[in-house]
Amino acid sequence: MRKELIAVAAAMAAGTVFAQQPNPLDAVPDKMPFDIAYGAPVSLERAEAAIAAAVAEAKKRDWKMNVAVVDSGGNLVAFQRMDGAQLASIKIAEHKALAAAMFRRETKAFENGIQSGFNYLITLDGVIGSRGGILLMDGGKLIGAIGCSGGTGSQDEASCKAGAAAVNK
Amino acid sequence: MRKELIAVAAAMAAGTVFAQQPNPLDAVPDKMPFDIAYGAPVSLERAEAAIAAAVAEAKKRDWKMNVAVVDSGGNLVAFQRMDGAQLASIKIAEHKALAAAMFRRETKAFENGIQSGFNYLITLDGVIGSRGGILLMDGGKLIGAIGCSGGTGSQDEASCKAGAAAVNK
Amino acid sequence: MRKELIAVAAAMAAGTVFAQQPNPLDAVPDKMPFDIAYGAPVSLERAEAAIAAAVAEAKKRDWKMNVAVVDSGGNLVAFQRMDGAQLASIKIAEHKALAAAMFRRETKAFENGIQSGFNYLITLDGVIGSRGGILLMDGGKLIGAIGCSGGTGSQDEASCKAGAAAVNK
Amino acid sequence: MRKELIAVAAAMAAGTVFAQQPNPLDAVPDKMPFDIAYGAPVSLERAEAAIAAAVAEAKKRDWKMNVAVVDSGGNLVAFQRMDGAQLASIKIAEHKALAAAMFRRETKAFENGIQSGFNYLITLDGVIGSRGGILLMDGGKLIGAIGCSGGTGSQDEASCKAGAAAVNK
Repeated sequence: MRKELIAVAAAMAAGTVFAQQPNPLDAVPDKMPFDIAYGAPVSLERAEAAIAAAVAEAKKRDWKMNVAVVDSGGNLVAFQRMDGAQLASIKIAEHKALAAAMFRRETKAFENGIQSGFNYLITLDGVIGSRGGILLMDGGKLIGAIGCSGGTGSQDEASCKAGAAAVNK
Repeated sequence: MRKELIAVAAAMAAGTVFAQQPNPLDAVPDKMPFDIAYGAPVSLERAEAAIAAAVAEAKKRDWKMNVAVVDSGGNLVAFQRMDGAQLASIKIAEHKALAAAMFRRETKAFENGIQSGFNYLITLDGVIGSRGGILLMDGGKLIGAIGCSGGTGSQDEASCKAGAAAVNK
Repeated sequence: MRKELIAVAAAMAAGTVFAQQPNPLDAVPDKMPFDIAYGAPVSLERAEAAIAAAVAEAKKRDWKMNVAVVDSGGNLVAFQRMDGAQLASIKIAEHKALAAAMFRRETKAFENGIQSGFNYLITLDGVIGSRGGILLMDGGKLIGAIGCSGGTGSQDEASCKAGAAAVNK
Repeated sequence: MRKELIAVAAAMAAGTVFAQQPNPLDAVPDKMPFDIAYGAPVSLERAEAAIAAAVAEAKKRDWKMNVAVVDSGGNLVAFQRMDGAQLASIKIAEHKALAAAMFRRETKAFENGIQSGFNYLITLDGVIGSRGGILLMDGGKLIGAIGCSGGTGSQDEASCKAGAAAVNK
């Protein structure tokens, strides 16, 4: 999908996309995208394990993260702000976790879309266009999501992936 | 209108629009755009019929939608979230219905505008730049609007159109 | 519990409660109050059945209600506003359903508490002090809540109870 | 101060306070109330230790708590929701911790005030009138606050005190 987006954006930049190509948003796929079943809410124990792993990864690299976990209903389960982590990222970490759970996808999908020229995404309620919001899964079901913020999006994502990897089954 | 936007976007992409052409936003049309009369509020019965048709279309295609109907005053009349539909779309479906009614146009108009380079639209209060918000009409008057969200914008729109078609006169 | 509250309020009104009696809020019960387990989210079918029953009860009595159902995570599942029902009650019906689910009790508990002199309840986030928010249960677990608004609190509650009774097991 | 409030409330209840006594709110004390110095922000380690102690106390008593810690600037440091704890208490626990830190007093002071008839307190920005928000102190300075919610106010307070006791110096 990323490649398609880039091709479209390149075409747009060349001023050719609307003139010569069909609007990619007009295609009606047969299947629902991101059709993941919502499961039972993640337990506190598992949420804490995910946060501990994310924080450990950040500590190893000398990063300072805010890390939030929400459950499958989007409600906050646990949160930690590392010493010296930026205050703005309290809300951003929670927002990333919430958006991942509510949209059932990594928040990187929105970052990619917006950076590829799909600016309409900015207007959708609850969207956050920065990577670092990742699903927590169990047996193919979404049980929650983890969100990291404090560094670059790429640092946030690296911390977040370590967190999710520690508990996903 | 679509063609105009495309021409402008192409010109913008070519870096020529502002330098060599008049600003299209400077034009003062004689007539009001989207000058549709507001009618009486859609009844609950009709709102439910529209939602039922949208949900039936979604079910037929194995999609999972959130569907909202607002009246001609923009106030919620009815809502349904199909089992397993994404939670983020509760607000988005309501937003699409509301924006369609308040701006008296399909929300696709905003999607097209933003995707054609008119990013100023993002800053207008109440705008949502994604198709799937459609007017409910009776005798040439706006009686409400239906908004769908849960799939791609094109899937949302297909569901929404089935809903509107069931009740529009 | 109602009787206790009334006794306390009467004592307060007589100016004797704090002087002569221990503060009832100082007691530390052994058991958690309202300790109901959150279950799986209510299905759309069941939510619609609850709303249909609430609306039928209201219609029978010539009342005009707004009726909302949320799931066990507090997210909206379905909503209906009867023709001519007051617009302010869109949000109130949703608020009642949400408060019932989040606090795991009928919203009447808050109405009773505040009317009995426990004004501190007014400051708790998410509280709504009016009856007409009732739990939806299945096998002893909370699967959602229904909220009605449009009439007096007592009319709201009567509609709501008819709704809950139709689906609770 | 409790006794003063009680006397005033009794006088109010007797309908005499405004007619025959000076308004207690007219008095201008020489000294600032609650004049505690703000210290450095509590560390994550210490915040987690406070939450762990609060959660341990709750577990021992078979209670289910939401526990939040904010720092001396009122910003969230850490949060845990025990399995099965009521969802409404996510916000309330954070609110209690925040109000304690921002007003530099236990939230019980507001509960007492409101329950003694000082309803004007309800209108002050940021107030929450329920015990269970307690200061975290170090060497006479305020370094943060802990807030608990999920049970009765008295249960919340018992959990919270165990949390604060584990880290206060």
